[in-house]
Amino acid sequence: MTHAETLPLAASSLTAVLFGLSGCLVDFGARASQQTVILPEHADATPGAFDSLKSLQGQRIPCAWLDELPPALSQPLAASLPDWIKPTQHSATMKPWPAPNACWQALMDLNIDRLDGCVLVSGEPRLLQSGLNAGLWTIGLASCGSLCGLTPAQWQSLGQKERELLRGKATVQLFALGVHSVIDHLGELDTCLADISLRRCKGEKP
Amino acid sequence: MTHAETLPLAASSLTAVLFGLSGCLVDFGARASQQTVILPEHADATPGAFDSLKSLQGQRIPCAWLDELPPALSQPLAASLPDWIKPTQHSATMKPWPAPNACWQALMDLNIDRLDGCVLVSGEPRLLQSGLNAGLWTIGLASCGSLCGLTPAQWQSLGQKERELLRGKATVQLFALGVHSVIDHLGELDTCLADISLRRCKGEKP
Repeated sequence: MTHAETLPLAASSLTAVLFGLSGCLVDFGARASQQTVILPEHADATPGAFDSLKSLQGQRIPCAWLDELPPALSQPLAASLPDWIKPTQHSATMKPWPAPNACWQALMDLNIDRLDGCVLVSGEPRLLQSGLNAGLWTIGLASCGSLCGLTPAQWQSLGQKERELLRGKATVQLFALGVHSVIDHLGELDTCLADISLRRCKGEKP
Repeated sequence: MTHAETLPLAASSLTAVLFGLSGCLVDFGARASQQTVILPEHADATPGAFDSLKSLQGQRIPCAWLDELPPALSQPLAASLPDWIKPTQHSATMKPWPAPNACWQALMDLNIDRLDGCVLVSGEPRLLQSGLNAGLWTIGLASCGSLCGLTPAQWQSLGQKERELLRGKATVQLFALGVHSVIDHLGELDTCLADISLRRCKGEKP
């Protein structure tokens, strides 16, 4: 049983969860942005992604993903994700990250009625800054985002000490942005969301 | 010298101020929504409106007004306002108040880069609820909005005790919504914005 399942009231108090796509739900290491075509391995879900989404679906918490990649790259990247996660309408006219616009647009597309209890999860500093600017709770991902920037094979080939060094450096950079929590990967999301719910119960605001 | 002028650093830390139109900047008593044509007196600025705008312009704080009246009513209502205050694009497809959408759209139209330090001023409970849902600081206007709902002539014809009773009742209703401050009219806005700036300096969040 996960931490979140032991705290159903706290967890269900969340309003919505927004995810980055590349370097968050899929594409460990956020390598797709350097490509002109998407290779099959880029579309692989990151560790914990499917379980996190299943848990949120079970709690009926609306979710969306957003990315700044052109649709020709983001659509194949998102192909393996469940249909119920709303993609954000890509708009070339929208003010780019770190402006808050894309986050607010994603919440409006989800038909969300309040900012309170909305969370952004991402490994991309510019998207996290957009979430902070929009007034969201923000959770940074240390190992699978652009700050580490390694493929799963490269990451696995590192020794424990090298991984800790890179993870620690990324964690410090993410907290320096002002994010509210940092986790290594989405396998830790349930626990982190339950923690944010408790912080909200205690009156903390993002 | 107003309170705001004695606190230039605190006041200038605000990011943007959104105003209601009817029952806030113009149309004391918010009577225009019950009309099919706008009478000249509806477009009269409310007490303190022009001075407040002048003060905000002097501090280079971006401002916009928003309303849900159709353009045929809102445009003549806004005719006396300075050109530099941005009107919000009226859109029949936008989710109506109290959804946060109109407030976020107004901030995006102003090209605002963060929610932090954004304030909504209004005498209309549904618009104030929209501001609260959008994560804004909110300032309710007690006497000139729809809760009192009296024309300037009707308001002036009341005795002091009757005015205090109506004002007190509206103030309680506005605080019950969750607004951060209530003032009687825009003549008190400078002081109220300086107070919000100080509350922000002390770490309070909306």
